[in-house]
Amino acid sequence: MRVKGREYRTVWMEAGRVMMIDQRLLPHRFKIIGLRSVDEVCDAIKSMAVRGAPAIGATGCYGMALAALTGEKTGKAYRRLLATRPTAYDLRDGLDYFLKAEGGPLERADRYADESSERCRMIGVHGARLIRDGMRVLTHCNAGAIACVDWGTALAPLRVAKSQGKSIHVWVDETRPRLQGAKLTSWELLQEGIPHTVIADNAAGHMMARGLVDLAIVGADRIAANGDVANKIGTYEKAVLARENGIPFYVAAPKTTFDPGCPSGKSIPIEERPQEEVAFVAGSDARGRLAKVRVMPLGSKCANPAFDITPAKYITGIITENGVFKPGKLK
Amino acid sequence: MRVKGREYRTVWMEAGRVMMIDQRLLPHRFKIIGLRSVDEVCDAIKSMAVRGAPAIGATGCYGMALAALTGEKTGKAYRRLLATRPTAYDLRDGLDYFLKAEGGPLERADRYADESSERCRMIGVHGARLIRDGMRVLTHCNAGAIACVDWGTALAPLRVAKSQGKSIHVWVDETRPRLQGAKLTSWELLQEGIPHTVIADNAAGHMMARGLVDLAIVGADRIAANGDVANKIGTYEKAVLARENGIPFYVAAPKTTFDPGCPSGKSIPIEERPQEEVAFVAGSDARGRLAKVRVMPLGSKCANPAFDITPAKYITGIITENGVFKPGKLK
Repeated sequence: MRVKGREYRTVWMEAGRVMMIDQRLLPHRFKIIGLRSVDEVCDAIKSMAVRGAPAIGATGCYGMALAALTGEKTGKAYRRLLATRPTAYDLRDGLDYFLKAEGGPLERADRYADESSERCRMIGVHGARLIRDGMRVLTHCNAGAIACVDWGTALAPLRVAKSQGKSIHVWVDETRPRLQGAKLTSWELLQEGIPHTVIADNAAGHMMARGLVDLAIVGADRIAANGDVANKIGTYEKAVLARENGIPFYVAAPKTTFDPGCPSGKSIPIEERPQEEVAFVAGSDARGRLAKVRVMPLGSKCANPAFDITPAKYITGIITENGVFKPGKLK
Repeated sequence: MRVKGREYRTVWMEAGRVMMIDQRLLPHRFKIIGLRSVDEVCDAIKSMAVRGAPAIGATGCYGMALAALTGEKTGKAYRRLLATRPTAYDLRDGLDYFLKAEGGPLERADRYADESSERCRMIGVHGARLIRDGMRVLTHCNAGAIACVDWGTALAPLRVAKSQGKSIHVWVDETRPRLQGAKLTSWELLQEGIPHTVIADNAAGHMMARGLVDLAIVGADRIAANGDVANKIGTYEKAVLARENGIPFYVAAPKTTFDPGCPSGKSIPIEERPQEEVAFVAGSDARGRLAKVRVMPLGSKCANPAFDITPAKYITGIITENGVFKPGKLK
């Protein structure tokens, strides 16, 4: 992805450190951080300096490379990295790839990142065929380049559609509690020059009912064998509303997100994240400094499930690097 | 309602001023403001120092009393007050009541407030019959005492159910963009000692799908003759999800919210509020001071429809001061 005139990936390795865009600071600040230990990589994943299933997968793979290069036992590193986030399946894929691959540690991780980036590019190529000139496309959370190594999953078809000269408009669900739509998707679409409008998550159904949404595309954190999809909390709501309003609802994900060992969404663990993500909202203050505000009274508690399950019946198709498939029909 | 050991209404008149709880400061600060002119009353409604359909209706009626007492022409005051918020029908009801009522200005407005409060109390009595011991009830936005003169609409049945010794738990949708659920409903439930948990709006569907919601009750800003309901943005989403999950979905509203002249939801005007309500989040900082943060990049725009339409087919029943009715069967 191009930021301030330079090409970046979400995560890479440089001078023995795992480097990444610190996504906790976006869109207010663009900063690269360098991690020197598996500990630091685990913290970066848990605290969501890096997030998005394919990006976590690649970060896990680079974490394994870092373990190998710094002399940490890979078995221990594997277990610790795997425990950082329970829902995204790509994490396991990235860790397993490292163990099975040949070549030096950096070579293996770089190859995983290259392949991951190429998978997303192909999702863009296949997905762009679904997008017609003038379409208004709803997306939820951030499934863009910074949720992957590059290109994105849900946003890749939009990038390719734009490069084909199609005029599109994107409705961006802000995606509480962490606001990855308002903060990250809008930032990416600004970089790409793609017209977009941010809406409260509550407004998505209204926009659909008013006939203002032609298509919905979201990413995925894990896809079960029967086609049920775990993705950012709220995805299920938008999928039900899309079906109710006759709007095609697509999931874009590489094969690394498929968990063939998982029979249905019921078997996918749903991460419960800290209450503070609901009780506080982070952003920038009037001087552009990072700040957060409390939005509820002391004494009230919150629940914060980070993902939900969208049953296969609500999903029109899954866009992968190999084409568009009916959910449950993936090989 | 009881706050810090004293009884309050949302709006009243005292020493020639319209007094109200400044809801823009809740839950961080409890402050009463006094308004000396129709201008100030209009600003208070527009800026949402007072909000909630029945509360706006009573404020409109007190605004008319203030006009009469200060010598402002009531025809002009009527038009200016009516123009403050386009969706809530109670506003027109409160203004019309003042014109038709007998007695002095303050007497008329106080009688409207008394009757409004009594209507809400009766909504509580009828609605409490729907609530069984142990139920987990979802609500959206704030339809509590501070959305009315007292008692609330959607929250009135919960208050009455609690007074009857029923054990209940309330799921509180935070209700972006203005977070009236997180800020106001949770604050009210804390005052009442009713157990509750705040969730991101995105999590409501997930909670329903997991079997954690037994009943949903929301308020209304306007009800059309066919039973379609205008209410806070996101209500439509939750209603569709409730039906999909076999959960009863009730709307609680006094007859002053019914607009018999409006054939269906298509005729109800939907207020578009400032982009800043989506782009910024207001709350309190680490020192408890009011503060706001920007949550999206400069250059991205927002849409901010404040209400949506829930078609009658998604509504199990409408709880009024006269009992529970099927939507469209109201007289």
